[in-house]
Amino acid sequence: MKKAVCIISGGMDSALSAYMAKKIDSYDIIAVHFNYGQKTEKKELESFRKIAKSLSTLKEYELDLHFISEIGGSALTDEEIAVPDEGIEPGVPVTYVPFRNGIFLSIAGAIAEKEGADAIYIGVVEEDSSGYPDCTDAFIAKLQGAINEGTKPETHITLKTPLVHLKKQEIVSESVKLGVPLSDTWSCYQNEKSACGVCDSCRLRLNGFKKAGLRDKIPYLDSK
Amino acid sequence: MKKAVCIISGGMDSALSAYMAKKIDSYDIIAVHFNYGQKTEKKELESFRKIAKSLSTLKEYELDLHFISEIGGSALTDEEIAVPDEGIEPGVPVTYVPFRNGIFLSIAGAIAEKEGADAIYIGVVEEDSSGYPDCTDAFIAKLQGAINEGTKPETHITLKTPLVHLKKQEIVSESVKLGVPLSDTWSCYQNEKSACGVCDSCRLRLNGFKKAGLRDKIPYLDSK
Repeated sequence: MKKAVCIISGGMDSALSAYMAKKIDSYDIIAVHFNYGQKTEKKELESFRKIAKSLSTLKEYELDLHFISEIGGSALTDEEIAVPDEGIEPGVPVTYVPFRNGIFLSIAGAIAEKEGADAIYIGVVEEDSSGYPDCTDAFIAKLQGAINEGTKPETHITLKTPLVHLKKQEIVSESVKLGVPLSDTWSCYQNEKSACGVCDSCRLRLNGFKKAGLRDKIPYLDSK
Repeated sequence: MKKAVCIISGGMDSALSAYMAKKIDSYDIIAVHFNYGQKTEKKELESFRKIAKSLSTLKEYELDLHFISEIGGSALTDEEIAVPDEGIEPGVPVTYVPFRNGIFLSIAGAIAEKEGADAIYIGVVEEDSSGYPDCTDAFIAKLQGAINEGTKPETHITLKTPLVHLKKQEIVSESVKLGVPLSDTWSCYQNEKSACGVCDSCRLRLNGFKKAGLRDKIPYLDSK
């Protein structure tokens, strides 16, 4: 059976992306999770493990990327930069982690080459999202070219981004359809017990549930 | 003064590349070194520190990338795969670390964006080298495109590979000309006290010194 490396953060988007790899595209899954010193690292790891278990993965990689928080420059990794809670602003937000998905996908490329996988799934969302430059179709296409140029001649890897043009409400409804355990996913940028409900990631998630006509069952601070 | 991120492994090539950034292109240097569980990790780190000190760097990053040896798949990181000592064979050698330079350059891209540097120097050598797919001009050009697409609109980073078309003898003679402390560099893939003299990296180095008409002063097992 063909194998896909799935980057799974613990959030909704990457969970759905991995479910699509398995249930729609019939891949066996190699699940990859990165711990990079983000504020909700423990909670995301816990979510990753639940999602990976539900996918009956072939293999799991939980990799230590704490050098990303040493580099810093983001509200997600730097205690001195607050996570914004006033709503989504135009431009690249302070929660952007410099070239994070470039780093993630390069590592996933190395894993795919080592494991003989022919695809990498990443749950990037371009339109209905926070405006990160490393979440676009154009970026993914360029990085796919670089990965295939910089690996062995016999290595051929396709980067798959099944969510890139979906809206959050479609992500919620598609997740329900495929049986993604949404209550085990975690999106909040700043809290690990009850989601804050006001960071960009909570806002996008809550809005997606609302528009899909569904209730999000994870705990929120103000039971939003 | 303009700033460049220089990836410095501890070997000759990256040391010369960083010296060219400083002495020829007049950059202030941000030195970056990666510890990734390679067999000569300690010795390379020691070499990096000496080279960085000699460059009066603005800042140094020594980053832990041990996940690379967890991924494995290379004679450099896997104790069960022997480093070849019979001479350079055609094709991609077993010392190739899957997409290593893709990972290194993505991280350097993040550092360059964070630090406001406009160039990244890497000492890849295409022709007179071990035949790694992630050491070519074509690969570097594609990755430069991916880095600029996947970072902020105001981030513009140029990847510089001043050694890519040099022969090893030119690297030795250019290093001498620029004052690179060659005796502080380390190239051997398998030993940390006396270089083996027979791995691909030692062979290329020794051949470079020989053709340049110079003696390599680092210790070799058989005092080659």
